[in-house]
Amino acid sequence: MPETTKLFVIGGAEKKGRGARLLRFFFDLCGGAQSRITVITCASRVPLKTGEKYQKIFFGMGAASVKVLPVLSREEANSAEAIELIKQSTGIFISGGNQVKVAATIGGTRLEAALARQFRKGVPTGGTSAGASIMSSVMVAGGMPFTYSRRKSIRLSAGLGLIQDVIIDQHFRQRDRIYRLAAAVMSHPRNLGVGIDEDTALYIENGTVASVMGMGTVTVLDGVGVAYSSYADGHAGKPISIFGLTMHVLTDGDGFDFATRTPIRNGDIGEEIAIPAEEVVQ
Amino acid sequence: MPETTKLFVIGGAEKKGRGARLLRFFFDLCGGAQSRITVITCASRVPLKTGEKYQKIFFGMGAASVKVLPVLSREEANSAEAIELIKQSTGIFISGGNQVKVAATIGGTRLEAALARQFRKGVPTGGTSAGASIMSSVMVAGGMPFTYSRRKSIRLSAGLGLIQDVIIDQHFRQRDRIYRLAAAVMSHPRNLGVGIDEDTALYIENGTVASVMGMGTVTVLDGVGVAYSSYADGHAGKPISIFGLTMHVLTDGDGFDFATRTPIRNGDIGEEIAIPAEEVVQ
Repeated sequence: MPETTKLFVIGGAEKKGRGARLLRFFFDLCGGAQSRITVITCASRVPLKTGEKYQKIFFGMGAASVKVLPVLSREEANSAEAIELIKQSTGIFISGGNQVKVAATIGGTRLEAALARQFRKGVPTGGTSAGASIMSSVMVAGGMPFTYSRRKSIRLSAGLGLIQDVIIDQHFRQRDRIYRLAAAVMSHPRNLGVGIDEDTALYIENGTVASVMGMGTVTVLDGVGVAYSSYADGHAGKPISIFGLTMHVLTDGDGFDFATRTPIRNGDIGEEIAIPAEEVVQ
Repeated sequence: MPETTKLFVIGGAEKKGRGARLLRFFFDLCGGAQSRITVITCASRVPLKTGEKYQKIFFGMGAASVKVLPVLSREEANSAEAIELIKQSTGIFISGGNQVKVAATIGGTRLEAALARQFRKGVPTGGTSAGASIMSSVMVAGGMPFTYSRRKSIRLSAGLGLIQDVIIDQHFRQRDRIYRLAAAVMSHPRNLGVGIDEDTALYIENGTVASVMGMGTVTVLDGVGVAYSSYADGHAGKPISIFGLTMHVLTDGDGFDFATRTPIRNGDIGEEIAIPAEEVVQ
């Protein structure tokens, strides 16, 4: 029987101190007091400092080991030491920053292959902000701060590919990103747009059933039913027409089935993926 | 045969000088050089100044007459002079400002009844910003600047009722109002949410077939197909879940059929409602 894959993506700005419910969920997922967590921080402009921050958090929760992999170069991403560290981890966490830097540094290296291998073996893999966006096959690589839905409002590139057929956007509500994500979805409607708000997360098992936790919402944009869009027409700066985009807004306790593209109402998610009761109390 | 009703709603910040395409469309609708336009400015904090601005614009286009009705009191809204002025107008335009002020001042007066009567007789009736929101039976009366979709994120009250089963929001993309409009739609999903961007307008004949013109987009939120929402659950500050909201983004030249709740692709709108060719050239 293949292992259950465990992906945990946070929309950025998760609570770090008391009330760090999302990070504690991930810590428990990695094995709690037995966990050996590796934090990859190359998205950050200050990888060492960011690493120390998460070391302090996970050690504070009682982790057996917390290592930082700053990945300052592609050489480091191909090193035997990095691969060995990943192999021995019971959980991997990718910090925030710039996902383009993660892709350019790790993409095509032995580290990327090792991350995918361990993920498929069931090692919980999490990320926040840039560390969330990087998880999918096609990812958001940049966009305009205010924009209509238009071709040039968003840039896409390749991510780590730990989940397929989705595009993950973060700081979603806070940075008003729904129209840029809609444009990304229209570029290839097989991809579901998943917009995660700050201090909010999606926990996805086997790339299919997901549950939402946190203070904000997760917006899912499904373009499969779109009758018409002008995405490919005219110049790239023109606002595009979209007829019949389906929008789901999910809140704490709701779920989503990626296989059937269907939201699941709070309470209807199977026990095996339910949030531990102690985590529900805020 | 009953007259065709003509409603023209602008999302605010329409171009006023050269390139005032939207106001010129309305001017032509009112009869061009033969038009006698009355501008109602009680939404504005400076009703007389706002009135002068639109007088200058419509006179500049060549209107036969442009009168200002500042409606400084309910007494004025019940005056024979105001009613007579409305009766003699070939077009009515309601300025921007605060729609709550329009409703509180005009609501239940003879002026409101006269506006509805003339509208049903086919007198073109337009408005921008607050003057757009006020047109529907139920209108947006206020909301929070940043918000998730939640009950307390939006206040609703009664508008002039020139169009039913819609809630019109304006400055839509510019002020990031989609989540508050989604909450308004969830309060009673028969109402379509219509969010109009700045310098963008919707021209609606007989309350059914509409066409979009302008630089931005019109977002339509249709909640009829929503399988589940938590709108009525829990406290009013809680983000709400919405499963299966339909979202349409319409751009210049697109249409919308309010009777069937269906978007119409650019070019597929019947001739009778098509934008005059000279207006299409920008």
